[in-house]
This record gives sequence, structure tokens and C-alpha cells, in this order.
Amino acid sequence: MSARSRRPFTEDQIIRLLASRFATADALIEMGIGDDAAVFRSAGVRQRWVVTTDMLVENVDFRRDWVRADEIGHKSLAANLSDLAAMGALPRFCTVALALPPGIEKNWVMSFFRGLAALGRRHDTAVVGGDLSASPSGILICITALGAATKRGILYRSGGMPGDLLCVTGTLGKAAAGLKLLFAGTRRSRKRWESLALAALRTPEPRCAAGIWLARSGLVRCMMDLSDGLSADVPRLCRASGTGAEIYAWCLPVFRECAERGWDPYSLALHGGEDFELLFAVRPQKLEVLKQRYPRGLPPLTVVGALTERGGVRIVKTPGSRPEPLPLEGFDHFRHPGDCATRQARLPIPAHRGAARRIRHLAADTFGRIPAV
Amino acid sequence: MSARSRRPFTEDQIIRLLASRFATADALIEMGIGDDAAVFRSAGVRQRWVVTTDMLVENVDFRRDWVRADEIGHKSLAANLSDLAAMGALPRFCTVALALPPGIEKNWVMSFFRGLAALGRRHDTAVVGGDLSASPSGILICITALGAATKRGILYRSGGMPGDLLCVTGTLGKAAAGLKLLFAGTRRSRKRWESLALAALRTPEPRCAAGIWLARSGLVRCMMDLSDGLSADVPRLCRASGTGAEIYAWCLPVFRECAERGWDPYSLALHGGEDFELLFAVRPQKLEVLKQRYPRGLPPLTVVGALTERGGVRIVKTPGSRPEPLPLEGFDHFRHPGDCATRQARLPIPAHRGAARRIRHLAADTFGRIPAV
Repeated sequence: MSARSRRPFTEDQIIRLLASRFATADALIEMGIGDDAAVFRSAGVRQRWVVTTDMLVENVDFRRDWVRADEIGHKSLAANLSDLAAMGALPRFCTVALALPPGIEKNWVMSFFRGLAALGRRHDTAVVGGDLSASPSGILICITALGAATKRGILYRSGGMPGDLLCVTGTLGKAAAGLKLLFAGTRRSRKRWESLALAALRTPEPRCAAGIWLARSGLVRCMMDLSDGLSADVPRLCRASGTGAEIYAWCLPVFRECAERGWDPYSLALHGGEDFELLFAVRPQKLEVLKQRYPRGLPPLTVVGALTERGGVRIVKTPGSRPEPLPLEGFDHFRHPGDCATRQARLPIPAHRGAARRIRHLAADTFGRIPAV
Repeated sequence: MSARSRRPFTEDQIIRLLASRFATADALIEMGIGDDAAVFRSAGVRQRWVVTTDMLVENVDFRRDWVRADEIGHKSLAANLSDLAAMGALPRFCTVALALPPGIEKNWVMSFFRGLAALGRRHDTAVVGGDLSASPSGILICITALGAATKRGILYRSGGMPGDLLCVTGTLGKAAAGLKLLFAGTRRSRKRWESLALAALRTPEPRCAAGIWLARSGLVRCMMDLSDGLSADVPRLCRASGTGAEIYAWCLPVFRECAERGWDPYSLALHGGEDFELLFAVRPQKLEVLKQRYPRGLPPLTVVGALTERGGVRIVKTPGSRPEPLPLEGFDHFRHPGDCATRQARLPIPAHRGAARRIRHLAADTFGRIPAV
């Protein structure tokens, strides 16, 4: 850090910096950063605006010593774009509210916005406004993203029917493996699988193109993104659709490489959060045509289960075996209200350790490295 | 608090509670709470959506021992609606992100949303989504509000011209007086002016109707809301409009009653934040017709100065006296980055104490009452 970057800076200075950095010629934006609010117009009456918001809290959702500022910027926006992708909406605008603790460097803030803007540019998402505030401790980030969609091109969590096949994009458990690497002290690695896992956690790629394609295909009944893990998110889709589900363990697109460290890929795939892949349901009769039409270059699709008339979510370990209840072990901020660890601290004990296991809380000494909580 | 309200609650439980509480039959909302994102449609192509976001941080923007949960809910939304009012936009929807520290009561959360929803109902503002998260310490609130306007019915900060008269709605310094009462240990009062001041701070009334009327009147050139005090906000309007300004001290609609406690009403009017009144510029030739047409029942309008060709903001103490530079003493979260007090802690020393004064930082012992920072 240069001496220059350590100078105190004012709210207005940052706002002007952001206003110049995010100046846009987008014809839909009539006012971006710099006024009381942002204004954007509708391109036509058939258009829908989709809005989503997501808050990230230091030492709950990220640790500054584990993730760089630009990666946090990327990830904050990625979480929102993933929500838009899950609706089939094209990302368009976002607002960014940031509360900063004392002593934070201007460079940190600019680096945060650089990472955010880089992802935004790749997805045509303009920052149209925001708020800056002081925080007594820890960085707070709240992003609201707006996406455009046509009425018919939007997919909800509801709409799934018994018999539909449950599918996911990409690989599951990769971000959870990255998190376990960080906990094991590996912040950088030359091993390809380890660096992929760390990148999946730090700079997840929202599935915007896949989400929009799936929503517009007319072949998918309902969709959501996997932010808290299959075991937490499948029940949400089921609740919205009024169904139950069975998950076929042997079908899961797990991240096998992590077994090298003695970790159970299936447990990470089921219970690890922050994969930001898409979960959706499709009629069995439509699966073939979906696979045929699905564009190359988009993340692979895998059938991982089926919706059922019977409520509850069960797991089928091998073809033909009896379905067993799926333990709920995804991330829930409030399941342990007395506990205020990092989200990272809530990775469950691997599933093979038996049915009586509970969510593991890391020992207090793990937090020795957390700065100034 | 009953034993029942102390039970742990899950994120999904709260979301379902909110979804049922904020269920709406609004034809423009196609999906509110409960999915990955909210969807609302445009009623027509001439319509504009206005979006604003505001973050409130415990012990920076509010203290839980000074303001009730429902009042915090009210105020969080009010700050956003005030921004929409300043654009002339009709509030329509909002998203609410909330991060909660360990041990927070479910009752607190529900009371927060009750206060927020009550204000929202009065202004036809639906909560269409949000996010819930854990916080290591202190409550964090981030609201994004969306308003509707027509292209011609929007007022920006820019557009003011030299010679335009600067006007404000309502009384200035009332919220600052309320804050000084809290600092003085007065949390409740039977005196009318004291209870008005406390209410102005705790449950400010956003000037939505006035803002929309002024924007649609075609008589106003530019507008913003007064959230950080005249001395901080007038320079912002000037910067956007490319002008300077003179403030006529003797014209200010001050809150005279506070002199009873020995406080300078002019200092509070100039430098006190959170009034959430409107500041706007009007051509001198249009002032009379504006006053004639301005509806009864809306907060009174007062001319408080004029825009000037010469840059900078000056204050004119008595008619005909020489303009003096206006010290910048509104609230800025980052003016003292090493300091992490409450916003409340930044009230300036009264203006009459001379030109060399600096923003006062309260002694550390003032924070003895702050819970768990």
C-alpha cells in the first residue's frame, strides 16, 4: 500500500470515483450513481424486471485473510447474478451498499469494486447506485441486482410435478472442497484440482447463460440456484412445488478429486454450500430433447433425482435400494442462533460417519486468525 | 418476552412468516417473497422505475437502547422512501436484507417488520424480497426501494441555475434536537416539542406526497432530500448543478423550541442530519405560482437561499451582510475513518462557537451504554 492510499477519504470522494468508474452509455439507464436514486426505463411492456438482494457479512460469509478484495467483489455480485440466473433473467443493473470498518484501505474498496465490475462487465450488469456507510467491525456488503425477462421466460421454484426429473448443472461440492482446503491451511495450490476448488469458492461463476437458456427452452418446469447445498435447497424447491423428492446418490456429479485428501465427495455434494449451480425439474419425456438442444459450452447437465408425490426428501444410495430420509445439513444462518461462527465453520461431518451426527462446530481456536471481530 | 419467542428460529421459518405477512394482490407483482428473486412488471413504456438503496448499521446509524425495533423498521424504510420522494417517484416495492447478531429475539425481528410494513402500507410500498443473514455483532439493515415515475416527472440534483431560489419543506434541525435529547438522557418526554423532536428522529415522515407534487408541477428545476444536513447536502446539489449557493440564515425554518435547552436552533438546522426534508431549486419567477398551487396539508415550503454563479456555498447571516463560507459539518461516514462512533456521536459543536471549531467527537465514556459492540 502506498502512503497515498492510506489517506482518509470521504464518502463523496468514493461516490465520485464510483460514478466515473461506472459511467455507462446504456440507453436504459437514465441516471446511475451520483443522485438520490437510479432510474432505468422499461424497454417494452412485455418486459419484466427481476430484483434480488443478498447481504454478505465479514466472518460469516467471508474472511478477509482467505479471500482477496477483488474476489469478494466478484463473489458478492456472483451470488446475486446466480439468483437472477435461477429465474432465467438477464442481469442488467445492480446497487451496491457497503459498510466499512475503521482503518480499511481505499485500495481495498477500489479492488472490491474492480472485482465486482469485472464480473459485471462480462454479464452486462451496470452498477446504478449504492450506499456507503461506516461499520463498527467487519465489512458488510449488500447488493441488489435487477434482471430483465419476459413473462413466459421466467422460472420459479414452484411448478414441479411428481415424476419430473431433478437435474443440476456442473459439479457439486467443489466450493465446499475449496473451503475445506482453506480450513486445512491451503490458500494456494499448484495441484489443478485444488486450485479449481479454491477458485470455485472464491470466484464462483454464476450460471447466467445456462439459466436463461433453460428458462427460454420451454422444457423446464421449475428452477432455483444451489447456494446452501442440495440437502437444504431441494426441500425448498419441493415445498414450493408441493412435492417430495428422491435423490439418486450414485448419479451425483461429485468432485471426486477431493477424495485424495480423505474427504467424502458425496457428502460435500449433498451438504456443501455456495456451488451456485442450477437445480431444475424437467418432464421425463422432455429430457432427451433438452439434452439434444442444450448448447455446447454451457456447464454439463446431470439428472440427480426425481420429484415424488410423497412428501419429504429421501436419498437412494444405489439403484433399487430403499430410499432413506435425507438429513438436512445445508447452511442456515439461523439454525444455531446462539452460535456466530463463519459460514465456513458449518461444514457438516462427512455423511458416512453415521446417522446420529450433528452439524460440526469448529473449535474456538480456528478463529485465532479472524481479524478484529 | 415469552418463552415461546426465545425459541431458535430458522431462516426458512422467517421467510415463510414474511411471505405470509407481506402477501400481496398487487397486479404488478408476479412474484414476491419466497423465490430466488422478485418479479414485477412495467405498467407501460412511459413508466420509469427508480431504485435506491440504504444501509443502516447498529451503533453507527441507530442504537437499540434508544430506538424500538418497530421504529428502526420505520426509519430504515423512511430513509429509502425519502430518496424516492427526492426524485419525485411514487414508492412501489422494496427488498429488505437483514443480518442479525447472536441472541436476537424473534420478537425483535417481527416488530422491526411490523414498523416497516406500517409505513410501507401508508405509502403503497410492498416488500418483494430480501435476505436474512447472521452478523457477528450488531444488526445490519439494507433496504432497496423501487419507485415508479414518468420520464418528465423525475427531478435530479442537477438542473439548478444561478439565480434560482433554494427552498426546503418543513422544519430543519428537529431530528438533531431529538438526538441531543437522547444524548442528554431524555428518551421520553411530556413536553410537546421534546416528543416531536424525538419522533422526528425515530420515525421520520418521508415527504413522498410533496416530492411527487413538486416533481410533477413542472415548476421545480432540481431536488434532493436532506439526510446529512444543509451544510453537507447543499454543496452536493451545487456540484451536480454546476453552481454555488448562498444560504440566508435568517430565513431558515429552524426548530426554535430547542433553545429552551440552550441549543442553537440555527446550528442544528444547518448541520443536523436526518431531517429527511426536501431541498429544491425554483426560478424566482415561478415561486409565486408554486406557492399558490402547492396543496394545503403538505409540509410548508420556505425559501432558504439562492443558487449563485460563483462556486462554493456561503452563508448570509443577516439581510445585506457579507456572505461567509459555510463550514462543512454535515454527516459523512468517512470523514474520520479512524473513528467508529455512532452517527449520533457526530453532532457538531454549535456554530456560534467560532470558525476554528471541528466536528466534536464524543468522549469514549459516552459509549458505555452501547450493547455489545
